[in-house]
Amino acid sequence: MKAQETEEAGEHATTARRSDRTRAAILDAARRRFAEQGYDRTTIRAVAADAQIDPSMVMRYYGNKDGLFEAALTVDLHLPDLATVPREDLPRTLVLTFLNRWEQDPAGDTLLVLLRSAVTADHAAARMREIFATQVGPALAAVVGPERAPSRAALIAAQLLGLALGRYLLRIPTLTDPPPEEVADLLAPAIAATLG
Amino acid sequence: MKAQETEEAGEHATTARRSDRTRAAILDAARRRFAEQGYDRTTIRAVAADAQIDPSMVMRYYGNKDGLFEAALTVDLHLPDLATVPREDLPRTLVLTFLNRWEQDPAGDTLLVLLRSAVTADHAAARMREIFATQVGPALAAVVGPERAPSRAALIAAQLLGLALGRYLLRIPTLTDPPPEEVADLLAPAIAATLG
Repeated sequence: MKAQETEEAGEHATTARRSDRTRAAILDAARRRFAEQGYDRTTIRAVAADAQIDPSMVMRYYGNKDGLFEAALTVDLHLPDLATVPREDLPRTLVLTFLNRWEQDPAGDTLLVLLRSAVTADHAAARMREIFATQVGPALAAVVGPERAPSRAALIAAQLLGLALGRYLLRIPTLTDPPPEEVADLLAPAIAATLG
Repeated sequence: MKAQETEEAGEHATTARRSDRTRAAILDAARRRFAEQGYDRTTIRAVAADAQIDPSMVMRYYGNKDGLFEAALTVDLHLPDLATVPREDLPRTLVLTFLNRWEQDPAGDTLLVLLRSAVTADHAAARMREIFATQVGPALAAVVGPERAPSRAALIAAQLLGLALGRYLLRIPTLTDPPPEEVADLLAPAIAATLG
């Protein structure tokens, strides 16, 4: 009995792992398609073909194209609790949180994928607005107060995305060549002035 | 003789005007194609069709696709002489110079067209780098000195393009709703801190 239970548990684990791998392959393919072709021109059929899977499986996991977009382009910024960061370190910490995230995978990072899509696709732009409003806004509220948080989050979004644009997409040498720590030092005074 | 001369001059003027209109139609069509499809997928044939003109005329005016791109996406920022601007007004003046340019035609402004293309197309990204290096850099040299000018120009490029992204492309309400003057007030402290 014990052996059988272990075997069954093993089988479940294998099935679960296979399902995880399938989902990961689908989401990866979806991110690439959405990034390259935008929302409108991306089809479930094409994503399924890229992931080497039947389109019906994509439908089973994500329902429809909206659901797939939602799942593929979900971004958790993993912002630290800004209230615990000493005020003088805050600007640098903010910039580095984003830079460290982007450095790991500039080509595949979901936020950069969204940035690439957002300039031409309304869906991606809406998602971007939502990320900064729901994650950066509340995180800043602890620091600048709830009233000023939305406008500060918007300005900081503009500056951080401008930095991403300059470092990863336009590749302006001053912003591309130095390591993240130096770039954070360059931008920190502007962020500090924005927080006021 | 006098009448004939006048008539000839008139004919020349008409021909010149027609040629100007043709060139403007070609460049307008080219900007739209480059913006929507990127450099690689844009063809002279498609631009000519959009401009309702023979492809050979496009070749005659601009040589090849490179020449057409060059002509269509030339940007003169018309920066004021920053040395004559009082230092305390400088950040706001800089932001407003760009905002006033963009407000006139957010959908068709060449710099915003480049921004939309630059995130996916190397040609457009290179042009963007060049614009900030050759126009913003030298303009700032008069203010922050020639040594610091290139790095300051890069940081200010990131902030101004981040603003353009937030106001015109992502349409973040805090950056989109207020008139240009108020937005300039919001960003001015960050620009001031960047200029140091």
